[in-house]
Amino acid sequence: MAVYTQVDDHTLSAFLDMYDVGTATSFKGIAEGVENSNYLLETTGGQFILTLYEKRANPADLPYFLDMMEHLAADGMPAPLPIRDKTGASLQTLSGRPACLISFLRGVSVNHMTDAHCAALGETLAEMHNSLQSYTQTRPNDLSLKGWQKLASDTQNGADSVEAGLKTIIFNELEYLASNWPSNLPSGNIHADLFPDNVLFTGTKITGLIDFYFGCTDMLAYDIAVCINAWCFDADHTFQATRAKRLTEMYDSVRRLSAAEIDALPILCRGAALRFLLTRLYDWLNPVKGAVVRPKDPLDYLKRLQFHQSVKDTASYVV
Amino acid sequence: MAVYTQVDDHTLSAFLDMYDVGTATSFKGIAEGVENSNYLLETTGGQFILTLYEKRANPADLPYFLDMMEHLAADGMPAPLPIRDKTGASLQTLSGRPACLISFLRGVSVNHMTDAHCAALGETLAEMHNSLQSYTQTRPNDLSLKGWQKLASDTQNGADSVEAGLKTIIFNELEYLASNWPSNLPSGNIHADLFPDNVLFTGTKITGLIDFYFGCTDMLAYDIAVCINAWCFDADHTFQATRAKRLTEMYDSVRRLSAAEIDALPILCRGAALRFLLTRLYDWLNPVKGAVVRPKDPLDYLKRLQFHQSVKDTASYVV
Repeated sequence: MAVYTQVDDHTLSAFLDMYDVGTATSFKGIAEGVENSNYLLETTGGQFILTLYEKRANPADLPYFLDMMEHLAADGMPAPLPIRDKTGASLQTLSGRPACLISFLRGVSVNHMTDAHCAALGETLAEMHNSLQSYTQTRPNDLSLKGWQKLASDTQNGADSVEAGLKTIIFNELEYLASNWPSNLPSGNIHADLFPDNVLFTGTKITGLIDFYFGCTDMLAYDIAVCINAWCFDADHTFQATRAKRLTEMYDSVRRLSAAEIDALPILCRGAALRFLLTRLYDWLNPVKGAVVRPKDPLDYLKRLQFHQSVKDTASYVV
Repeated sequence: MAVYTQVDDHTLSAFLDMYDVGTATSFKGIAEGVENSNYLLETTGGQFILTLYEKRANPADLPYFLDMMEHLAADGMPAPLPIRDKTGASLQTLSGRPACLISFLRGVSVNHMTDAHCAALGETLAEMHNSLQSYTQTRPNDLSLKGWQKLASDTQNGADSVEAGLKTIIFNELEYLASNWPSNLPSGNIHADLFPDNVLFTGTKITGLIDFYFGCTDMLAYDIAVCINAWCFDADHTFQATRAKRLTEMYDSVRRLSAAEIDALPILCRGAALRFLLTRLYDWLNPVKGAVVRPKDPLDYLKRLQFHQSVKDTASYVV
């Protein structure tokens, strides 16, 4: 939610000269994405998002993300299409930052998630996974077990200041996950951050999947676990089983879930809850000076983790 | 430059039901305007800006601002049109804030101002003043002499921490202005904040005047003085006389400047420079906790003030 890098009129104009998209008719910084600067750009040729990648983005990862979006868009998925300039390049440098012009996707994020939204999400997620089977690049998930261990270590001195006993909860959970984390489930390229902010709807139809900048290669069912955490709890942290069941049911109707994947859902949900607990805890304990975003409450994900720990069997998540 | 108040999907949908503008197809917070929350909204009926007025806006002033915009738009000026709901109301309450839906204006702000931009600005400014002659509401300019005296008093303890001697410069200038400020020049409703951020261009044609929230009733030539300060200096604070002369020349071609107005330009420019020096100084000394906007350097306007103090006659500003 930010514009960290200002792009002036001359710089924009010279940038657009590299493309076949016409000239700017409107250019507004938008409060979208936590990590990067984003502009909504209208030209005589259409509507676009211009993203400048700020310091938390690793430039070496950008081709993986952009090619992933291009692969999906070319396959008819509602992902942004990185626009290529007259020389065929989509990754640029602008105002000293790596930058990319991508297509604008219509739709509105939902804040009140319903069974119907979750059903659509499950269906689209499975379609995305199927499409990405033919995307051949890979990128390790640096926010899986090893990354969590590093985050747990980096936050251990402050954890109990946020909630008494949190450090012990985190280390006990990490020990459990390290001993039980599945390793032989179907894997591929996943979104890994498909929160409601990153899904655009028209009614209950998904018209946009955005923000692929945590995309990585990992277990496909882990992407489902992220979605269950992000979409299937109410504001008071109550689990909404029907939403989760509609999500997995529709996913399964497009890409059949194996028995092993279903059996793994509880632990994958625990891992996904811990992942967001840890990154939020880190951001909470290390607020960026002058940041435009208030850190999100890590305890939202402690409560989700505790719910998943309490689950007796997979019947909570699947029909 | 901010989104202080989040509007969720249900709230937006219920809000749009009050209007004849269709349903939302896109809704993005934009980094525009320092004081309020702004969203760029696309519906099946068109493009709009949704503004929620935050705590620095005085609700009692909002009808004056909205009616001013409506007057200008109805008169063919490139001002945003406040959209009226099915009952005829344009001022609403949304998410606990006064709010208004206004038409979206195409165009791009310029950062590199040229003689041609300043000529267009002078012409449009005069047209706006002519149009506002038939706008009958009034609002005192609370950022004129009395307001400056209060700001000078509120900042006097910190002024010298920003620049040695600044307090004395400010109080000496205030004394000069209080003794010499003109009182019998043509007055009317003015924009009073027509900075490059608030003017949208397509090429060198003005397609939008925005952010009327400092609009007030004051000397028309004071609006010119604000523009000379905001548009006719380079980043290194060098005065660009040709820009100022093109601005006043084109203004005069639409609305004839009297000899008294021309003679008053140096002191009006000094007053306008002091106004922005003081408000920036206040914001610099009183940074808002968690603000998304870095305070602007007050010394930019000290340098402008010192230029205007050095001016020998009106030949610097007019052809």
